[in-house]
Amino acid sequence: MSAAPTSGPLRVAVLGCGVVGTQVVRLLTEQADDLAARIGAPLTIVGVAVRNLDAERDPVVDPDLLTTDAQSLVRRADVVVELMGGIEPARSLILEAISHGAAVVTANKALLAQDGPTLYAAAEAAGVDLYFEAAVAGAVPVVRAVRESLAGDDVRRVLGIVNGTTNYVLDRMAAEGLDLDMAVKEAQALGYAEADPTADVEGYDAAAKAAILASLAFHTRVSLDDVGREGITALTADDVAWAARTGHVLKLLAIAERVHDEETGRDGVLVQVHPSLVPEGHPLAKVGGSFNAVFVESDAAGELMFLGRGAGGAPTASAVLGDVVSVARHRVLGGKGPVESSYADLPVLPAGAGRARYQVRLDVEDRPGVLAQVAALLAEHEVSIEAVRQSPAAGDAAHLVITTHIASEANLRATVAAIAELAVVRAVLSVLRVEGA
Amino acid sequence: MSAAPTSGPLRVAVLGCGVVGTQVVRLLTEQADDLAARIGAPLTIVGVAVRNLDAERDPVVDPDLLTTDAQSLVRRADVVVELMGGIEPARSLILEAISHGAAVVTANKALLAQDGPTLYAAAEAAGVDLYFEAAVAGAVPVVRAVRESLAGDDVRRVLGIVNGTTNYVLDRMAAEGLDLDMAVKEAQALGYAEADPTADVEGYDAAAKAAILASLAFHTRVSLDDVGREGITALTADDVAWAARTGHVLKLLAIAERVHDEETGRDGVLVQVHPSLVPEGHPLAKVGGSFNAVFVESDAAGELMFLGRGAGGAPTASAVLGDVVSVARHRVLGGKGPVESSYADLPVLPAGAGRARYQVRLDVEDRPGVLAQVAALLAEHEVSIEAVRQSPAAGDAAHLVITTHIASEANLRATVAAIAELAVVRAVLSVLRVEGA
Repeated sequence: MSAAPTSGPLRVAVLGCGVVGTQVVRLLTEQADDLAARIGAPLTIVGVAVRNLDAERDPVVDPDLLTTDAQSLVRRADVVVELMGGIEPARSLILEAISHGAAVVTANKALLAQDGPTLYAAAEAAGVDLYFEAAVAGAVPVVRAVRESLAGDDVRRVLGIVNGTTNYVLDRMAAEGLDLDMAVKEAQALGYAEADPTADVEGYDAAAKAAILASLAFHTRVSLDDVGREGITALTADDVAWAARTGHVLKLLAIAERVHDEETGRDGVLVQVHPSLVPEGHPLAKVGGSFNAVFVESDAAGELMFLGRGAGGAPTASAVLGDVVSVARHRVLGGKGPVESSYADLPVLPAGAGRARYQVRLDVEDRPGVLAQVAALLAEHEVSIEAVRQSPAAGDAAHLVITTHIASEANLRATVAAIAELAVVRAVLSVLRVEGA
Repeated sequence: MSAAPTSGPLRVAVLGCGVVGTQVVRLLTEQADDLAARIGAPLTIVGVAVRNLDAERDPVVDPDLLTTDAQSLVRRADVVVELMGGIEPARSLILEAISHGAAVVTANKALLAQDGPTLYAAAEAAGVDLYFEAAVAGAVPVVRAVRESLAGDDVRRVLGIVNGTTNYVLDRMAAEGLDLDMAVKEAQALGYAEADPTADVEGYDAAAKAAILASLAFHTRVSLDDVGREGITALTADDVAWAARTGHVLKLLAIAERVHDEETGRDGVLVQVHPSLVPEGHPLAKVGGSFNAVFVESDAAGELMFLGRGAGGAPTASAVLGDVVSVARHRVLGGKGPVESSYADLPVLPAGAGRARYQVRLDVEDRPGVLAQVAALLAEHEVSIEAVRQSPAAGDAAHLVITTHIASEANLRATVAAIAELAVVRAVLSVLRVEGA
């Protein structure tokens, strides 16, 4: 049963040598003996493609391996590890690798969310593996869990904290009462947020991961454009404080769910990223700092959660290497891993098709009959109330926090629009979904 | 990319038709179309082996499929799903299936912990798959995570809550102040504990799972006999209450870790099951009721946690079906999954070889100088103190709670033996390890 190498070395090409690429080279080098034993053949790095040969690099990267000619590098490899990010030239290089019969491991969420089907189809036609564990939630093995472990089950819903930057920012707002700008500045100072934090705080990064997870979970093509997206930029320190006061934690969640569409009578898929109130007792509420977590509800398995580091060189490299071992083993032993299936081909529903519990906060006039007017509008739109909390605000104003039972988003939005028109309502302060209850 | 069936039906034999077997038959039947699309070929149940043809069964199980002749059934199958449990005849039937070239999926932790290497070797020699996700922590896909996702990383430590019965019992002791007997009786009344709860409360079930996890995590053969085992039967309501008072939760943990052995100068593996104090802030502390969770620390990925239902027909069946899809896909597309590797062949260390933090509770005489005597003994054995808490007990006694820094277990045990001999010490009430700090 010892797995001594049984074939010649496999040639590995690494595209990109940033933080993750460097760690991948490190693990390939330092763990070479263990990897060879686990794969049944040694791995040889045949080259590391970079843009700039003269940039300063970690000494673990042998300068003789560096090349700017990525295209010819991929033609000399059995396994291509793509860590450049972005759409081009990553896309062309992956297609080139596939057409030369190489297996591909990538961490490129943006590319997969935008053009995954093209890549999946090319890999399937060529009969080569395309693995991408590191593209979603870093070291958390959720891609493998959804595409393999749950392959005999039916997933109902996936709730993910898949962006560590926003999770850190919301954590700091909750812990210290910071407003969003200050928390983002702090995250930037610590290197947790980019100089331009748009991709994180506007939810684009989470939306790309949501599209990938939804495609796997529901065997349906979901692209970035299908994802309803709302970032955290509209959240105030007040929103965060009120979340805590009502027993919740504010999290930016990526949500993919199977929804029965009343209009067509069949199931559809709804994929959204938005700030959500998570009840304090829910496992996702405790996922702090830069951790990522994905919570899955499925028909047979019930509730599952996967937690771990969502970013960083070493954790991401661990996920990449796990994929490298899988595809390399297939080279040695024959066979290949799962292909992306889109056989279910469920319709992707528009954002308003969802149903959820909501929490609505209002500033209203502090006089009798206000709640009755608001409650009447809710009843008229068939939104039923779970709890109401009324407290004095400044001057003659009162603060009203309404938590609903499960309601359709369309009804809720219509209700809130009507409430905003009431003479006694001064402002609709926030409308937030409550998830995981 | 739609995965239309591309080959003739695959024949599935189910051995055992208890709670899990029934749910497996249900999923195979109700999800037949989805499974065929995901596998690329339909699955046909060719038989369900049972001991008693006349027992009352769920109508989802077609009586015409039942047979008492398991041996001839396995010869007619491409995929054999073993859910009988126990050592024989499960072991012989699995070997028979392998020798006939069938892939095997099993949930049999006792058999794998006792005789896994024989089965792994037979499967590897025959070139067939042997999958066993459901043998550890039910629906929680930790086997796949450790043997595939972390294949490019080095695992340092695995901490698991892998027995739902004891987790429920400890939960109830903590929440209601029940003593152990009452909590076990309650668990029995609810069907969470067997009439004879020995396998759970004495830690045998957890030890079998620990052996399997350790083998996978450290590429080393670990059998049930190698696992240090201490159940929860010695725990009192006081132990549970003091855990809470000092900011901990008592959990029965299965612990597998790579330990540097000072004597031999090389690494070894230490595998133990024992009640542990888990700090309230640790993710494992919040795993309540009948949930299972496995916490993994690895060199590159850092900390990961997997949470889900550890038992029950449907969750276990979900894990079994995930494996069935994997092995069936290999039948259709060629190739096979990972084999068990024991190339690392690390020595399995005896229980005393470990190092940990400890909490020691003593009843002592309530007079000056007692703490000084106790502290002197600890210093003499090179056990350093992190915190001490002294409080009056009944009469002229005092209660002393000592938390140590990390110390070797051998030193700690020697210290406690010496402390017990002190004239001023009336009783050593408990010695518990603190994990996950």
